[in-house]
Amino acid sequence: MTRQELFDQIKKKNSYLCVGLDTDLDKIPKHLLKFSDPVFEFNKQIIDATHEFAVAYKPNIAFYEALGANGWESLQKTLDYIPKECFTIADAKRGDIGNTSALYAKAFFEKMNFDSITVAPYMGEDSVRPFLEWKNKWVILLTLTSNPGSADFQLLEARDGKYFYEEVIVASQRWATADQLMYVIGATQVDKLAMIRTIVPDYFFLVPGIGAQGGDLDEVSKAGMNPQCGLLVNSTRAVIYASSKEDFAEAAGKEAKHLQIQMAECLDKYLSTP
Amino acid sequence: MTRQELFDQIKKKNSYLCVGLDTDLDKIPKHLLKFSDPVFEFNKQIIDATHEFAVAYKPNIAFYEALGANGWESLQKTLDYIPKECFTIADAKRGDIGNTSALYAKAFFEKMNFDSITVAPYMGEDSVRPFLEWKNKWVILLTLTSNPGSADFQLLEARDGKYFYEEVIVASQRWATADQLMYVIGATQVDKLAMIRTIVPDYFFLVPGIGAQGGDLDEVSKAGMNPQCGLLVNSTRAVIYASSKEDFAEAAGKEAKHLQIQMAECLDKYLSTP
Repeated sequence: MTRQELFDQIKKKNSYLCVGLDTDLDKIPKHLLKFSDPVFEFNKQIIDATHEFAVAYKPNIAFYEALGANGWESLQKTLDYIPKECFTIADAKRGDIGNTSALYAKAFFEKMNFDSITVAPYMGEDSVRPFLEWKNKWVILLTLTSNPGSADFQLLEARDGKYFYEEVIVASQRWATADQLMYVIGATQVDKLAMIRTIVPDYFFLVPGIGAQGGDLDEVSKAGMNPQCGLLVNSTRAVIYASSKEDFAEAAGKEAKHLQIQMAECLDKYLSTP
Repeated sequence: MTRQELFDQIKKKNSYLCVGLDTDLDKIPKHLLKFSDPVFEFNKQIIDATHEFAVAYKPNIAFYEALGANGWESLQKTLDYIPKECFTIADAKRGDIGNTSALYAKAFFEKMNFDSITVAPYMGEDSVRPFLEWKNKWVILLTLTSNPGSADFQLLEARDGKYFYEEVIVASQRWATADQLMYVIGATQVDKLAMIRTIVPDYFFLVPGIGAQGGDLDEVSKAGMNPQCGLLVNSTRAVIYASSKEDFAEAAGKEAKHLQIQMAECLDKYLSTP
């Protein structure tokens, strides 16, 4: 998917919502366990109920991997079921030496046909480069994450006065343009978001951490929006586990719609037409 | 496996060799493709030929993941086949928020029964902590890797004059003792190895990058060995792809033995008894 196609969809749906699919057998409604593939059945109903309000879906690969071979099958079926106009993110946080990253790229971009994958920057350019060799596929680089541990290394100051996560941004924008690269910036880091937007005006940010983790949608949107929106704001638990009963899909749809309405307001307020 | 058990095995075999199992269908001898599980057949014969000379095996998870469900099956069979006295490393380079890391820990430590997993430090303490909650299981933290991209971020200087990778060592040794935590230090970084040994005298290092990548075994051993050896030196391509013909296992055994003999010499020279 191209950046323009992503923006077109954002305008059409008046939404920049990404729904996280961290589907956990211990958390899904019990009545689904009678299906031959409960994980896929849950995802299918969640997608049916939310795709009108969401522009992206982000399966967290760990949840599928933990189920072994069955999990990979549920993941592939889920991916095939997501409507073609939606942007898909393999939340895998991979990052390895070149030939290994190339294998991961092949697995997620070719075999499974994801639009994008989250990648950890620690091993540097040659660990990210293989993911950038695919046309219209995206790398979403871990940058300033939403968890408390982000303070341990990402917020260390380098000798030149920049935070370490800024060094990641400065270096990586030399590796790829805003047509191939996005950054993960946690919603809990909203005080840094406006500054980051000045360093990389054109790049999309994937923003986890609203809701359960404490980030605020209006503040994130005010600080981070650019003329092409430039934001994909993720919600996982608040949407997919909105209800633990038989009405889970309906409840998820309601929560997704609720977020979409707030996003429409934010687009109205903060989307500057250049 | 405990640190003492690992050292006992090193002394018994006079070796600190780790064999990387980056098993690639495109690279294994063609005659194996007639087996129902060529990846496992290759690994089985490699293990048979090398286990006398190796104390550890390190399957690179990407190579198995790239094969989908079949790959996971080959991996599990391989792991079950590795002799119990050998230390097993899931080279997965994972690292995610807490609940996701907990899932990965369960998958690799419980379901598959690996002794250890490689973990990326970028997301900080709470992304590593869940792996440390397993008794006699190990985290091997990416620290100073052997690839050229290690210069991009790991070798940035922080404000306090330390390299970024040193900040990772300084912080992480507060999270876990030498009985649960090891560090990945590339053999190509031998100029830094002696200094790193002074910061963490007791911890084991997993050292990739000898052979194909240019690291030198004697130099690494001189700079990095401690009274419990403290080193696992990995070789992958030079061992498992020593021959691409029907004699591949024999050739792998020969190369492993060659390395073991060099290691015995290094143990003799550099193992200081305290």
